[in-house]
Amino acid sequence: MSLNTLSRFQSAAGLCLWLLVCFAPATLGAVFPTGEWYAGIRKPAWNPPGWIFGPVWTTLYAMMGVSAWLVWRRGGFAAQRRPLALFLVQLALNAAWTPLFFGLHLPGLAFAEILLLWSAIAATVAAFLRVHRAAGLLLLPYLAWVTFAAVLNGTLWRLNS
Amino acid sequence: MSLNTLSRFQSAAGLCLWLLVCFAPATLGAVFPTGEWYAGIRKPAWNPPGWIFGPVWTTLYAMMGVSAWLVWRRGGFAAQRRPLALFLVQLALNAAWTPLFFGLHLPGLAFAEILLLWSAIAATVAAFLRVHRAAGLLLLPYLAWVTFAAVLNGTLWRLNS
Repeated sequence: MSLNTLSRFQSAAGLCLWLLVCFAPATLGAVFPTGEWYAGIRKPAWNPPGWIFGPVWTTLYAMMGVSAWLVWRRGGFAAQRRPLALFLVQLALNAAWTPLFFGLHLPGLAFAEILLLWSAIAATVAAFLRVHRAAGLLLLPYLAWVTFAAVLNGTLWRLNS
Repeated sequence: MSLNTLSRFQSAAGLCLWLLVCFAPATLGAVFPTGEWYAGIRKPAWNPPGWIFGPVWTTLYAMMGVSAWLVWRRGGFAAQRRPLALFLVQLALNAAWTPLFFGLHLPGLAFAEILLLWSAIAATVAAFLRVHRAAGLLLLPYLAWVTFAAVLNGTLWRLNS
């Protein structure tokens, strides 16, 4: 599909689908609540308060959905196969992190995984910037947060091993 | 929730949800069709015909859904946190493979990823067998197919690099 054959309805339906796809990993946060284990491990002084993660991730997933939609509107998967594939790889890696950390309580493995996630996000940002400037910029807060999350994950691993 | 507080309705709703969760990665097969690139690369003589993948994966995702549901019924996420977390990690790795191979056309990276997927499935089978024998056995055809898929992916990588 090309940009000019996309009706308003198709475009709006696309946005809904992309938001749905991006919020799918968010449900994992609900099935693996932070719980006793997380409350009991050693944390750095700069560990953010628990209530901050919900609003932050909700905002980031919404921005991700809009970002992927902006790229997808430029010709769909046929035209944007590579950037959208990168986006879906990073989203799958994002989905894997929660069960690794909060489900299996494996901060070391989760840290290795978040470094892969960080690389996949960085590659997605680079690919998106070439297609649609705003779409790339919309992912920068996400990359910044995952940078912070990786440092936090690494610190929690070091403090508790 | 414990097994004896689960109503028939909750149990049936749970099965629908698990099937839905398991078929989510299947949609990636639809957005990244095999296409020209796959048609053009060198393949081994024993490469299976393309039509086989659809029915095989449909069957495997359905078996996965039933398998996870059988474990989840034994006390939900509260009681089965570890086996269900392993299951969701392997499912996320399963979701990542399609965009890596058919989206980015990176058979080498996809091969490394499928080895991780294989390990995660093997760990899930072991964890499931301890909770519910049938649930573990239901995943064995999936493990067998991913073993074959890994060999095929490795061969395609070698033949085309």
